[in-house]
Amino acid sequence: MPELRQNPATKEWVIIATDRAKRPEELGTGVINPPPNEKDHCPFCPGHEKLTPTEIFSYRTYGTAPNTPGWWIRVIPNKFAALQPEGNPDRFQMENLFLYMNGIGEHEVLIESPEHAQSIATMPEKQVEEIFLAYRERYIALSQDHRFEMITIFKNHGLNAGTSLRHPHSQIIATPITPNHIRHRIEEAMRYFDDHGTCVYCDMIEKEKKLGDRIVAETDNFIVFEPFASRSPFETVIIPKSHASTFDSIPPERCKELAYITRMTLVKIFRSLNNPDYNYIIFSSPCHERSLEYYHWYIMILPRVTAVAGFELGSGIYINTVIPESAAKFLRETPFE
Amino acid sequence: MPELRQNPATKEWVIIATDRAKRPEELGTGVINPPPNEKDHCPFCPGHEKLTPTEIFSYRTYGTAPNTPGWWIRVIPNKFAALQPEGNPDRFQMENLFLYMNGIGEHEVLIESPEHAQSIATMPEKQVEEIFLAYRERYIALSQDHRFEMITIFKNHGLNAGTSLRHPHSQIIATPITPNHIRHRIEEAMRYFDDHGTCVYCDMIEKEKKLGDRIVAETDNFIVFEPFASRSPFETVIIPKSHASTFDSIPPERCKELAYITRMTLVKIFRSLNNPDYNYIIFSSPCHERSLEYYHWYIMILPRVTAVAGFELGSGIYINTVIPESAAKFLRETPFE
Repeated sequence: MPELRQNPATKEWVIIATDRAKRPEELGTGVINPPPNEKDHCPFCPGHEKLTPTEIFSYRTYGTAPNTPGWWIRVIPNKFAALQPEGNPDRFQMENLFLYMNGIGEHEVLIESPEHAQSIATMPEKQVEEIFLAYRERYIALSQDHRFEMITIFKNHGLNAGTSLRHPHSQIIATPITPNHIRHRIEEAMRYFDDHGTCVYCDMIEKEKKLGDRIVAETDNFIVFEPFASRSPFETVIIPKSHASTFDSIPPERCKELAYITRMTLVKIFRSLNNPDYNYIIFSSPCHERSLEYYHWYIMILPRVTAVAGFELGSGIYINTVIPESAAKFLRETPFE
Repeated sequence: MPELRQNPATKEWVIIATDRAKRPEELGTGVINPPPNEKDHCPFCPGHEKLTPTEIFSYRTYGTAPNTPGWWIRVIPNKFAALQPEGNPDRFQMENLFLYMNGIGEHEVLIESPEHAQSIATMPEKQVEEIFLAYRERYIALSQDHRFEMITIFKNHGLNAGTSLRHPHSQIIATPITPNHIRHRIEEAMRYFDDHGTCVYCDMIEKEKKLGDRIVAETDNFIVFEPFASRSPFETVIIPKSHASTFDSIPPERCKELAYITRMTLVKIFRSLNNPDYNYIIFSSPCHERSLEYYHWYIMILPRVTAVAGFELGSGIYINTVIPESAAKFLRETPFE
């Protein structure tokens, strides 16, 4: 069973993944087993459903059986799950200092397409819409489990972004805790609300629209911009214009528009930076803290074009070598179609 | 002039390094200029002093002139400094929302040895002592400048740790702000002190000594352990046993002992993980918040053996695949001499 442990000095939670634990001597040997990236051996390709754990959910052609081809989106438990679903969320303390708990949670993989060599930037828009609809369904399903506090939906694209599996996929992790990293963000937004009576994200949207120079794209309901204090080149935010604190509050019919603008943004980044490695993350309030007037869900895209070094790790201050206004201009001018 | 910008929603500060700024189109072209790693072209090797900015400080043989050979430790301004020394620390606000200020600060490089191919794990202990003495002198000198709030001393060893220059060096950055990442740590320690009347780091040391299974090494005045909630394999803390909140409070004569235990730890990590890339950071309280009873300075070593992916970036929760107690045992048993 994995374990969640909290650092008593910093209050940061860590997953000690005992089930995928390596013996110390396995690290640093330089021996890396390359994952099966050839279509013929890819566990995520249609026809290879038996290579993965049993599917949780899929969008598939009527009449086709689970764990057989016929799907266009498929959600499975992560074979190397960081957390395990069984157990209760009791906390324990060792020596009156060290807090820990069973590493309960869900760790799912969402296979984004049957096509091995696609990425969101190259998929049809309809497929991207289905991905968002599936995210939404899994978010809602996981938030029914009252043991879970946070649902993090994210994507690792490329080796520098932490994946080595080429087949397009995202991950969904439900954790029984709200990490202090998120709590700090919520706290700042809460204080801003108490001072100003408005959501800081709503105010950012308004000011960004007024200034205009960091805006990349806009539709009726979403806006894309490079944050004023982007931590790395081409850090990009896709945010709904109307206030909503949890991701699953998006009406299903609006996933089409979100798919359009997300795909557009990723196409522009793909072209601008020559298919860079990137992560995206859907930030959302804790799943049982719904309808907060001071928090706002959004998608953050982080191209992994620069290294995080000792200064960033120590101070938390990032050094960004591209001016956000220049990045925004560059993305605006990058053709989409 | 570089700029410091604060994200209004998260309060995170970022350095927009305009002076080293790249045009967006320079990213992602795949063109990398490899740094001069051959001894013959290395700007940090003796005889090449003219290739660097004018030296700030050195330990050198009596009678040799600055910016000529004869030094064994040399501190220079970073040629590609993230911050610039001239200016005042006034803050400005744009649109009543976006805080920013001139990117003032100091960004220094400490060349750790005249020997091109050394690293701390392979240097004589005496040389490591001189490095710590030089850190201490620079820390004291920079903290005389009342514009600076934080002094971060850190080392990037290897490509995955953010450096590509082989010649052994560390960096020192003085910033005119205390970043919220550090403030959060201080706040937690302060609350713990208010609750318990003791320093959480002192309590950790006491409990780790009692439990013993995460301890790597110990001398009269320092202890080395793998934190209970280590974020990554072989995350290692070197901490003074007696309470002190700022690094420069170390008596100069104790740098010998710190050098001994730091070098021992790095030798053990070098051997265990086959010379891994790593960062180390000296955590210390803000330089004008001295003698805090609730904060404690320490060195954190972070081997870069695993990737930080979307989940860590989004949630702040790290997944560690090596149990800290196993890592500690492994390091304890790794021979030093």
